[in-house]
Amino acid sequence: MEAIKSWKCHGGVVTRYRHTSPALGGLSASFIVFMPPWPTTAPATKVPGLFFLSGLTCTDENFITKAGAIPHAAEHGLALVCPDTSPRGANLGAEETASWDLGVGAGFYVDATAEPWRAHYRMASYIAELRALVTDALPIDGGRMSIAGHSMGGLGALATALRDPPGAWRAVTAFAPICHPSACAWGRKAFGAYLGVESPSAWAANDPTALVSARPAGAPPLHIRIDQGAADEFLAAGQLLPADFVAAAADAGVPVEYHLHDGYDHSYYFITTFIAAHIAHHAQHLRA
Amino acid sequence: MEAIKSWKCHGGVVTRYRHTSPALGGLSASFIVFMPPWPTTAPATKVPGLFFLSGLTCTDENFITKAGAIPHAAEHGLALVCPDTSPRGANLGAEETASWDLGVGAGFYVDATAEPWRAHYRMASYIAELRALVTDALPIDGGRMSIAGHSMGGLGALATALRDPPGAWRAVTAFAPICHPSACAWGRKAFGAYLGVESPSAWAANDPTALVSARPAGAPPLHIRIDQGAADEFLAAGQLLPADFVAAAADAGVPVEYHLHDGYDHSYYFITTFIAAHIAHHAQHLRA
Repeated sequence: MEAIKSWKCHGGVVTRYRHTSPALGGLSASFIVFMPPWPTTAPATKVPGLFFLSGLTCTDENFITKAGAIPHAAEHGLALVCPDTSPRGANLGAEETASWDLGVGAGFYVDATAEPWRAHYRMASYIAELRALVTDALPIDGGRMSIAGHSMGGLGALATALRDPPGAWRAVTAFAPICHPSACAWGRKAFGAYLGVESPSAWAANDPTALVSARPAGAPPLHIRIDQGAADEFLAAGQLLPADFVAAAADAGVPVEYHLHDGYDHSYYFITTFIAAHIAHHAQHLRA
Repeated sequence: MEAIKSWKCHGGVVTRYRHTSPALGGLSASFIVFMPPWPTTAPATKVPGLFFLSGLTCTDENFITKAGAIPHAAEHGLALVCPDTSPRGANLGAEETASWDLGVGAGFYVDATAEPWRAHYRMASYIAELRALVTDALPIDGGRMSIAGHSMGGLGALATALRDPPGAWRAVTAFAPICHPSACAWGRKAFGAYLGVESPSAWAANDPTALVSARPAGAPPLHIRIDQGAADEFLAAGQLLPADFVAAAADAGVPVEYHLHDGYDHSYYFITTFIAAHIAHHAQHLRA
């Protein structure tokens, strides 16, 4: 991985990197890492890390520039890792004809199995690859990782945390996540394209509501928090379906801290209002 | 003025407005206001206001989305007012041939007197017009106003606060301001175009370093704070010249709180690191 540019921020450093990704079929990908200030007297010390997965149309830059997360990550001594939302440069004809909710900027954090997507649209494997890359190359503690996301990235965060072996991620939080993609228009369109329309088991393996239902009894605790704006137009449109997830989690005996906030919408103005609470949630469980 | 869209944020409301501006020769302009949560039990109460002027290439959106200012404005109960950086839609031929540091996105907060700019490029008058508009239409206390800015907007903030009658603005802060435009390439290009190459008095009337030198003895105190990154490439290139301003202020007996920060550059990563301190500075003097 190659550092493209670095910026000092809140006593730490934001760096944008570029690397060639085997998971994405050899495409070049960029990502951003914030490393908090850490004691120079103990250079071997590693810090815990928080992945943040962004939503539709975003790149690796939106969260780090707009969420107001950095002061809180600096305060709690967490690294932030911000991947892109899809492969770029695959040059698939299907990307040209896709809309803003499929293809570029809309990888949905799944490994596509259908043509023409399957060679490059492998964002689930990409997150695992990036986790290994950053915990190997940077002083980030691979044993103390957690994950968060917004909207499509909230789907990605919940699905990743529930799909990976229990204990792989200490905590997961999501802002206005697409909780039940198998049952909403965005999810059915993307899963249909990437996973095929006749693959119920593949859909379930990437759907937070199905995954939480299948959570093994006795698994290590996964500390889940979801925040949702009550004035979110995509909640009203039935794209997010948090009640489905909360009900499935309750049936499975998996605790979920769910907060519905009067007046807030789907935007970064919502995220930035509650980012301090999310980072404190992660810090609490990463430091435990 | 017409509200285009509103977003709840940190208990307050961000609203983007559009209006027709006489100061800008009748063009349509947009601006953004954050109103903090304020006591519904005292609806007649007005809150103090902070203008923030953005830098080259920015719009009314950059500061509010990227600086991380809102939680601090909410905490201190300040309104934030974010104007655009130039007129838009003037359709001057000169705009087509201008570069990123002149014309659209580069109004320099002066009232142009030279052709073809003078009909529309009147950003100094526009700031005054906008101040009157928002303090009339919104519960913002016109008697408790302060101003801040970044780079070209730092020039604008310092020049506005020093040009207006003493006491009009309680405090002024700037991030990496263009302190001495008459003596740097950006300033000489813009002032030459907007004010004419043979107008030393017009240049001085818009130049913070010249203005602070001319500050009347016995004027009410203007609480000035400037933060500058030591790794700022535009500092190294001689575009900012903070030492000129600091020396001129010292000669004139005007106190300036000047902070030079090791490792920080010119970006929003620098602004967001010190925004809490700037807003606390304004709150202290607006509440005094």
